[in-house]
Amino acid sequence: MSSRLGEDALIARYFAPYAGPAALGLRDDAALLSPPPGCDLVLTTDALVAGVHFFADDPPQSIARKALRVNLSDLAAKGARPLGFLLSLALPPDWTEPWLDAFAAALGADGADYGCPLAGGDTVKTPGPLTLSITAFGAVPAGRMATRTGVKPGDRLYVTGTIGDAAIGLKIRQGRGPAIPHAEREFLIGRYLEPQPRTSLAPAMAEHAHGGMDVSDGFVGDLTKMLAVSKVSARTLVYRVPLSSAARAAIAVDPGLFVVALTGGDDYEILAAVAPSSAAAFEAEAAAAKAPVTCVGEAFEGRDPPSFVGPDGGVMTFAQGSYSHF
Amino acid sequence: MSSRLGEDALIARYFAPYAGPAALGLRDDAALLSPPPGCDLVLTTDALVAGVHFFADDPPQSIARKALRVNLSDLAAKGARPLGFLLSLALPPDWTEPWLDAFAAALGADGADYGCPLAGGDTVKTPGPLTLSITAFGAVPAGRMATRTGVKPGDRLYVTGTIGDAAIGLKIRQGRGPAIPHAEREFLIGRYLEPQPRTSLAPAMAEHAHGGMDVSDGFVGDLTKMLAVSKVSARTLVYRVPLSSAARAAIAVDPGLFVVALTGGDDYEILAAVAPSSAAAFEAEAAAAKAPVTCVGEAFEGRDPPSFVGPDGGVMTFAQGSYSHF
Repeated sequence: MSSRLGEDALIARYFAPYAGPAALGLRDDAALLSPPPGCDLVLTTDALVAGVHFFADDPPQSIARKALRVNLSDLAAKGARPLGFLLSLALPPDWTEPWLDAFAAALGADGADYGCPLAGGDTVKTPGPLTLSITAFGAVPAGRMATRTGVKPGDRLYVTGTIGDAAIGLKIRQGRGPAIPHAEREFLIGRYLEPQPRTSLAPAMAEHAHGGMDVSDGFVGDLTKMLAVSKVSARTLVYRVPLSSAARAAIAVDPGLFVVALTGGDDYEILAAVAPSSAAAFEAEAAAAKAPVTCVGEAFEGRDPPSFVGPDGGVMTFAQGSYSHF
Repeated sequence: MSSRLGEDALIARYFAPYAGPAALGLRDDAALLSPPPGCDLVLTTDALVAGVHFFADDPPQSIARKALRVNLSDLAAKGARPLGFLLSLALPPDWTEPWLDAFAAALGADGADYGCPLAGGDTVKTPGPLTLSITAFGAVPAGRMATRTGVKPGDRLYVTGTIGDAAIGLKIRQGRGPAIPHAEREFLIGRYLEPQPRTSLAPAMAEHAHGGMDVSDGFVGDLTKMLAVSKVSARTLVYRVPLSSAARAAIAVDPGLFVVALTGGDDYEILAAVAPSSAAAFEAEAAAAKAPVTCVGEAFEGRDPPSFVGPDGGVMTFAQGSYSHF
């Protein structure tokens, strides 16, 4: 037995400054939320383990941002505006005050930036690696959540931003990347370390998308998964998949990185399936939201896995469509 | 890189059978909830680590029940009816299919029994100990959540059930318990292993309680904490604290266990602060809900910590009011 003061003092010192109104000052056992009228709630949770999902010596700010942003990415893909999050944090024996200070401050800053404040949580100790789990919740107009199962034949398939940066960035970080200029290496590594969730696209997703998911495990695998659970097929033009100039530079040096880009994951971009009649409005709203979208294919009736048409017009096949942390 | 099939197949096999409607068959990235009209939502999260919060070789059913029920206990203390939960599960390298099967089945059965089905989650691997975090959410009539900070001068202080069984049960489990009959030992150990959340008391809490919290870290410490954040004082008659016949038998053999009972924690009973004008109705509704309550004291204006009046009329002091896992 020892005094519980340890955990309470820790919460009061490190986390209470960043608590939102739902958190009741983090002095209660629970968070309180008055759901916005006319909305459904979307809830998502992601767990991250040191040594599995990030490096234990990654900057605490990066770990905090990644943990929150992978959840924000899920909410955006569903068309939901973030409302808040709960944090479960298991600290290893060697945690330090400066580490926790930096971690909590980065989490607090991201919560403020994305309108998704800390609403509650639990802090425990672990003899194992640092483990954290964030549950984020958001609001979507009732009946408008973009589901994974909602893709319809005829839908245009869109992806936001650029694909593959993080996967190539991870290779560079592991010392297995191509020789490209410093600025481009840093850009790609940054894309791996700190996802940029497409929160601004949420209203357009709720308004226009039949189907949606974020790309976390690889473009090819995630698209295949969404189409399978939607029970539709598709034709995808992989030469249309948007690549950053840094990714293009890397692929120019090492052409094998093209497949890495398509399958590697950690993109946290959004896949959206939109009816042709809504396509123009969706594209315009996405551009206005600074979340540019690219049409990469079209869904059609059928149960075959999607085909991926390569730059030469031939169909590409992938031994492994996606990355698994499991 | 390896196929993501691993995690998807695992979820489909072990968890999808127990998924509630909010889970969308566990084929989406998120859970979808239509909040009940006129209600606030209460969200709570608790993390458990093998070797810290339970023994790694505890039965998987007990681990599952404890993980869910500690959250259900929080919801009940806030006056909230459970709606569902999200599970974050980090599996160690030596996990087995029979273990996961038993774990998921027990979680599913409890979800059904308590009206709190699985709504989503995340499953990852860890090189460390089994770690799980459950986020449960429930509904309370708008504005009626029983908060930790809501105790008012004059309120009667109630506790449900009996106090100290789990703390004494843990001692027995650790081979440090008193010599009492087998049936009583088993009862006390069972109270440690499998909390019985007071879900049936939630309506009465929402209707009548100014303040509420569950007793997880010890009666003395938790009551002290609730009064401190409510900025009131209290007089508590510890000889009124309800004890089971098994706990009384244990204390008769080893009188030092009385303090263990009052401070040891893992009770998952509810502390409620109720205005005198509501006391009769609260007691009647609690009895009807089969969650009997005992009045153990009264709050009054002041900032002093509560006093604890012992069996002999003298004031008891406690070196350590509560247990901390941290």
